Amino acid sequence: MNVKPLGDRVVIKMVDYEEKTKGGLFITANAQDKPEIAEVIAVGPGGVVDGKEVEMQLKVGDHVIMGKYAGTTVKIDGEEIIILSQNDILAVVED
Amino acid sequence: MNVKPLGDRVVIKMVDYEEKTKGGLFITANAQDKPEIAEVIAVGPGGVVDGKEVEMQLKVGDHVIMGKYAGTTVKIDGEEIIILSQNDILAVVED
Amino acid sequence: MNVKPLGDRVVIKMVDYEEKTKGGLFITANAQDKPEIAEVIAVGPGGVVDGKEVEMQLKVGDHVIMGKYAGTTVKIDGEEIIILSQNDILAVVED
Amino acid sequence: MNVKPLGDRVVIKMVDYEEKTKGGLFITANAQDKPEIAEVIAVGPGGVVDGKEVEMQLKVGDHVIMGKYAGTTVKIDGEEIIILSQNDILAVVED
Amino acid sequence: MNVKPLGDRVVIKMVDYEEKTKGGLFITANAQDKPEIAEVIAVGPGGVVDGKEVEMQLKVGDHVIMGKYAGTTVKIDGEEIIILSQNDILAVVED
Amino acid sequence: MNVKPLGDRVVIKMVDYEEKTKGGLFITANAQDKPEIAEVIAVGPGGVVDGKEVEMQLKVGDHVIMGKYAGTTVKIDGEEIIILSQNDILAVVED
Amino acid sequence: MNVKPLGDRVVIKMVDYEEKTKGGLFITANAQDKPEIAEVIAVGPGGVVDGKEVEMQLKVGDHVIMGKYAGTTVKIDGEEIIILSQNDILAVVED
Repeated sequence: MNVKPLGDRVVIKMVDYEEKTKGGLFITANAQDKPEIAEVIAVGPGGVVDGKEVEMQLKVGDHVIMGKYAGTTVKIDGEEIIILSQNDILAVVED
Repeated sequence: MNVKPLGDRVVIKMVDYEEKTKGGLFITANAQDKPEIAEVIAVGPGGVVDGKEVEMQLKVGDHVIMGKYAGTTVKIDGEEIIILSQNDILAVVED
Repeated sequence: MNVKPLGDRVVIKMVDYEEKTKGGLFITANAQDKPEIAEVIAVGPGGVVDGKEVEMQLKVGDHVIMGKYAGTTVKIDGEEIIILSQNDILAVVED
Repeated sequence: MNVKPLGDRVVIKMVDYEEKTKGGLFITANAQDKPEIAEVIAVGPGGVVDGKEVEMQLKVGDHVIMGKYAGTTVKIDGEEIIILSQNDILAVVED
Repeated sequence: MNVKPLGDRVVIKMVDYEEKTKGGLFITANAQDKPEIAEVIAVGPGGVVDGKEVEMQLKVGDHVIMGKYAGTTVKIDGEEIIILSQNDILAVVED
Repeated sequence: MNVKPLGDRVVIKMVDYEEKTKGGLFITANAQDKPEIAEVIAVGPGGVVDGKEVEMQLKVGDHVIMGKYAGTTVKIDGEEIIILSQNDILAVVED
Repeated sequence: MNVKPLGDRVVIKMVDYEEKTKGGLFITANAQDKPEIAEVIAVGPGGVVDGKEVEMQLKVGDHVIMGKYAGTTVKIDGEEIIILSQNDILAVVED
C-alpha cells in the first residue's frame, strides 16, 4: 500500500537500531541512547502550505534526525510509520 | 442529505475496519491497531480561507490518514461523519 | 427586532430538533445524537476583517453545521440566537 | 468629560434593561436573560491598528451586541463605560 | 532624568486621584472606583515596530485610559512611572 | 572576551545601584525600589530577524529600562550579562 | 558521520568546561556558573524557512551563547550534539 503525504509532509520509519549498530553506522555510549534517526520513505509535493511556499528538500532514502514528539504514528501493513512536516525534520545524516 | 463543506474543509467517514481487513487492504498486527484511515465523501471549494489561498487537493473517494483528534464529528442520517480542514489530512493512501 | 452582524459574522438559530425529525430531514440513531444543525437568519457584509479580505459565502435560510462551542449565544425577543464567524461554520446541508 | 477612543476602539454603555423592557424593545423570557446589548457613545478613528487597516463601521447611537467578557470597564463621571475593539462587537440591533 | 521610550511605547504616570476629584474632573460614586486614568509624560518615535508601521497618536500631556495590568512600572527619581505600548492605551479623555 | 549579539539582540549589564545613588542619578524612595536600569555593552547588527526588518536603535553606553523577566542571563569572565531583544528594551534614560 | 542541518538550523556541541577554564578563556566565579557556551559544528543552508527568508550568519567553529532550554539534544557517534534554530543562538563570543 502506497502512502502519499500532502503538502510539506514526509513519511518516515524509525531505523532498526540493533541492525544499524552492527553496521557501525550509529554508535552511542549505551543502549538507552537511541538517536531519533529515521529513514524517509515518502515525501509530499511541497507547494503552498498554510499560505506559505514550501520547497521539499528531503528525498526518499534520506536518513534524518527528527524533533522529539513530532508527527503522527500510524500502523500500515503491519509497519509503524510516522507522518510529519518537513519542518519537524532537524537534519539529514550521512555516513 | 447532502453535506457541502465550506472553504478548505472536507467531509470524511471512517473506513469500516472489519470489512477492510477482509479485503486485505489495511493489515495491522492486531485488532487494536486501527489505522486512522477514512474516506473522503465531500470536499470544499477551497479559495481564500482565513486570508490564505487554499487549493483543494483531495477528491471524493480518496482514502486518507487524518491527524488524531482532528475535526468535528456529526451524526447525519444515522451516520457519523467528520468535518475537518484539508490541512488536518496527513496523507492519501493507495492500494 | 433586526440583528445585523458585523464583518464575517453570521446569526444562526438552532433548528428545532423534534420538528425536524418529524419532517424526516435529520435522522439520528437516538435522541441524544442531536446534530449541531442551525439555520442562518442573518449574514454580515464580509469585507476586510482583522486585516483579511473575507467573502460571505452563506445566505439567509442556509442550514449549516457549526463547530461545537463556537459563537456567542444571546436571547433577543425571547429567542436564543448564536452569533459566530463564518469561519466557525463547517458545512452547509441540503436535502 | 469627553472620552475619545484610539484606533479601532469604541466606547459603549450597557443599556438600562428595566427601562428598555418597558418600551417593549428587548423582550426576554425572564429577568435573568439580560442580553448583552449596549449603546455606542464614542468611536475611534480607525486607521492602521496593529499593522492592519481598520475601517470604523459603527457610529454613535448604534445599539450593539458585544462578545461576553470583552473590553475594559471604567467609571467616568459616575457612569460605567466599556472600551473595546470594534472587532469585539458582534452585531448591530435595530428596531 | 529624562526617559525616552522606544518605538511605539509611551511613558505615563497615574493621575493623583484625590487632587483630581477636588477639581471636579473625575467623579466616581465612591473612593474605590479609581479610574485607570494617567497622564502621558513621554512618547516614543513610532516607526516600524515588530515589523509593523506604527504612528504615534498620543502627545505629552494627554490624559488617557489604559488597559488594566498593562505596562511595566518603574520607579525613577522617586516617582512611579509606567511604560507601555500605545496599543495598550484605550482612549484619551478631555474635559 | 567579546560578546557579539546576533540580529536584533543587545547585551546589557545591570547598573550597580549603590554607586549610582551616590552620584544622585537614580533616586528611589527606599533601597528595595531598584529600577531595572542597565547599560548597553553590545548591540546586534539588526537586519531581517524572524522575517521582519529590524533597525538597531540602541548604542553601546545607553542606559536603558528593560522589561521585567526579559532576556537570558549569562556569566562571562566573572560578570553577569543579559542578552535580550531590542524589543524588550522599553526606554532609554538620560541625565 | 556527517550531520547536515536543514534550513535555519545549526548543530552545536557544548564546550568542555574544564578544559576551557584551564585555557583562561571562560572564567566564572564558581564551578556552578557554567556559561551556556557551545561550538558550532554544522550550519544549515538558510533559505526560505516557514515562509520567511533566512540568511545563515553563523559558521562552523563559532563559539556561541544559546538560549536556555533551546534545541534538541541527540547522541551521534557517542557524542551529544544539539540541533537548534539560528534564532535560538543569542550571541557569538570571541577571545
